[in-house]
Amino acid sequence: MDTIKLGLIGFGTIGSSVVKILQENGGLISQRLGGRLELVKIADLDITTDRGVKVEPGILTTEVGEILEAPEIDIVIELMGGYEPARSFVLKAIANGKHVVTANKALLAKYGDELFGAAEKAGVNLLFEAAVGGAIPIIRSIKESFVANRVEAIEGIVNGTANYILTKMSDEGLPFDQVLKEAQEKGFAEADPTFDIEGIDSAHKIAVLTRLAYGTTVDFDAIYVQGISSIRQEDIECAHEFGYRIKLLAVSKFDGSTIDLRVHPAMVPEDKPLANVNGVLNAVLVRDDLMEENILIGHGAGGLPTGSAVTADVVEIARDIITGCTGRVPSQAFPSGSQTAIPLKNINEIEAEYFLRFSVQDKPGVLSRISGILGENQISIRTMIQRERDPRGGGVPLILMTHQALEENVQKSLQEIDSLDVICEKTVLIRVEK
Amino acid sequence: MDTIKLGLIGFGTIGSSVVKILQENGGLISQRLGGRLELVKIADLDITTDRGVKVEPGILTTEVGEILEAPEIDIVIELMGGYEPARSFVLKAIANGKHVVTANKALLAKYGDELFGAAEKAGVNLLFEAAVGGAIPIIRSIKESFVANRVEAIEGIVNGTANYILTKMSDEGLPFDQVLKEAQEKGFAEADPTFDIEGIDSAHKIAVLTRLAYGTTVDFDAIYVQGISSIRQEDIECAHEFGYRIKLLAVSKFDGSTIDLRVHPAMVPEDKPLANVNGVLNAVLVRDDLMEENILIGHGAGGLPTGSAVTADVVEIARDIITGCTGRVPSQAFPSGSQTAIPLKNINEIEAEYFLRFSVQDKPGVLSRISGILGENQISIRTMIQRERDPRGGGVPLILMTHQALEENVQKSLQEIDSLDVICEKTVLIRVEK
Repeated sequence: MDTIKLGLIGFGTIGSSVVKILQENGGLISQRLGGRLELVKIADLDITTDRGVKVEPGILTTEVGEILEAPEIDIVIELMGGYEPARSFVLKAIANGKHVVTANKALLAKYGDELFGAAEKAGVNLLFEAAVGGAIPIIRSIKESFVANRVEAIEGIVNGTANYILTKMSDEGLPFDQVLKEAQEKGFAEADPTFDIEGIDSAHKIAVLTRLAYGTTVDFDAIYVQGISSIRQEDIECAHEFGYRIKLLAVSKFDGSTIDLRVHPAMVPEDKPLANVNGVLNAVLVRDDLMEENILIGHGAGGLPTGSAVTADVVEIARDIITGCTGRVPSQAFPSGSQTAIPLKNINEIEAEYFLRFSVQDKPGVLSRISGILGENQISIRTMIQRERDPRGGGVPLILMTHQALEENVQKSLQEIDSLDVICEKTVLIRVEK
Repeated sequence: MDTIKLGLIGFGTIGSSVVKILQENGGLISQRLGGRLELVKIADLDITTDRGVKVEPGILTTEVGEILEAPEIDIVIELMGGYEPARSFVLKAIANGKHVVTANKALLAKYGDELFGAAEKAGVNLLFEAAVGGAIPIIRSIKESFVANRVEAIEGIVNGTANYILTKMSDEGLPFDQVLKEAQEKGFAEADPTFDIEGIDSAHKIAVLTRLAYGTTVDFDAIYVQGISSIRQEDIECAHEFGYRIKLLAVSKFDGSTIDLRVHPAMVPEDKPLANVNGVLNAVLVRDDLMEENILIGHGAGGLPTGSAVTADVVEIARDIITGCTGRVPSQAFPSGSQTAIPLKNINEIEAEYFLRFSVQDKPGVLSRISGILGENQISIRTMIQRERDPRGGGVPLILMTHQALEENVQKSLQEIDSLDVICEKTVLIRVEK
């Protein structure tokens, strides 16, 4: 039985889960693979903290070179996260002819062209199922199961922290700050939650999926990104009254010439499956020319779910090594040479229905001034709620849902409206995604 | 660029969709595969009916031997369905060294051991993603993405016809017979709908998934199967009152020693994702030791969705041929030699909560006689609804939900109860699946 040797960089939550999976389910894996996976080295700056798994003495090292330069190691698993030194380590591993498995969406979203190009040139695999949606098999599905399909749209709830916060706000009526604090205490949110709650992590993930789905490069910095920190309890309540749930959605739509690529809170109709993906669950919806919609739901984070995806990638490469084939499936679904650079649509050009929450002074004529400005900008109102004045003071919430409108017109209107003297704070805009 | 030659047996809805996909998305497939798929022959008894796709003259034949015996054909696509002559054709193709792609769940459920054994012996692939859940990538996910995972349970809504009927009955309050008739008129149900509505098709599919998930053979005839034809409008209404939806569920649970394998209508809590999979949609839930639950939802039938899965299998085999590897992934997830024959649990041994609809005479003492028999058999009642007498006559519906109980005790009770003189018709039992 062939033995495939692995080196692991990064001995954190996911890394130690991978070790646990290899130990506890190693027999099962060998049976299904027809080969043996042997973890020969684990590199981390901290090799003294107890990770709850037992490893043989001599396996742990603080010297990453003992993995990157070890001739016997076939596959390097990069689970340290972040841009650097992860990027340099992955490039070094590739240059030394090693296959790489990573869960690092930030790295792939930002340096994908360089890394995938290097891997293809070196004839090694660079796999990353765990980078998007944890245990959800979305990457392999797009690359292999949907190989004959022209993807038209991807919509994802791909950040468990943000989804947990929105779900808690919705189910328990708690304010954003309190839920975030609780999530941090429970370990569902990082000490610095910026990437999660401001949509940056979701943008990394939708950038990766977009590359695969349409065979394009993606300029990460050009993605429109808006987080959930401005969502208030009253937005969630009004959404519910209108029959929607607010979700942090990552959207990527291809109309044949441009890609509409964006991350923002969105109102999702309550009877749609995505609206009912709650808590730390993730979901990815793929729409294409053949199968209409496919929705994959699962745990998008956590050691074992993510470790399960990492291990599956390792097995995929091990199968290639054992059966002696290379370049079986292009790492990014399309061969690097055939990729194009499809332009991104400017957010101003999209059309949607909008939920607008104004905070206004309780004076006669306010509604007429607001609706006047909207009307001048070709925005027609579908429905409206005026709430009672908040007893704690501040403006009166005035909530509108519009018919289909052009984003540019909506933004222009809000600029005008927000400069009116009767407006108490910046208007909140949430797009409706049907 | 390599050319892989295909022969197609069965030019029906799925077959003609595969032809359409190869024609319309052939360029995309070639780009992603790095090779060309060429359909050289289509065999069907009827080669005159217009299938809405144009094929070159000379490609159509009524002689299946022109595919099975053609030395240049690499992959045979079997889309004729049924046991025979599909079984003989697939065996012949395998014996002649051809890889096979099929969507034929009946064939695999019944003759899986023979067919997979023959394929493994001949060193060819036998792929079948389209056999379960149409476009839903459940087969590839179990075989590759969940390769390190010990599956504990699979639950599926895997028959679109049955789900369509139950959804219509639920949403529009229509009786079973009328919805079935409409479904037949719209083409959502076959002229002979027995396989779909009596759960046999679902049993074929869960048998196939069970083989993959646990590495076991399955005696198809030993599966407990109950269809939806006894479900009445009042069951659906009461389910809703209790907070459930009725779904035809295929269930496969492995406790480490026996497999609880069954198909029957089940009450699913309304806030669970499976309860909200409606119409012709299918869904498969997989629970295992690493990722908790993964749910895949999509179109389980129809030409293009199913054709998309067939084409993906063809591409997978083509990749193996082009890169020169064989036996990369065992066709059934586990190598045939390593399969065991895990015993099936008898339905009498399962424990569940039960929904029981009695049809009783409107007389004093009836409830006490029924509850007495249930009590003697260790079945305790959780909640009860007594309906008004049906103005069209017949018995009065009496509906009970039980606490967790042993199936054997429930069946014994029902036998006693149904022999009482106050019972007007056979009691309906629906298991609750949480």
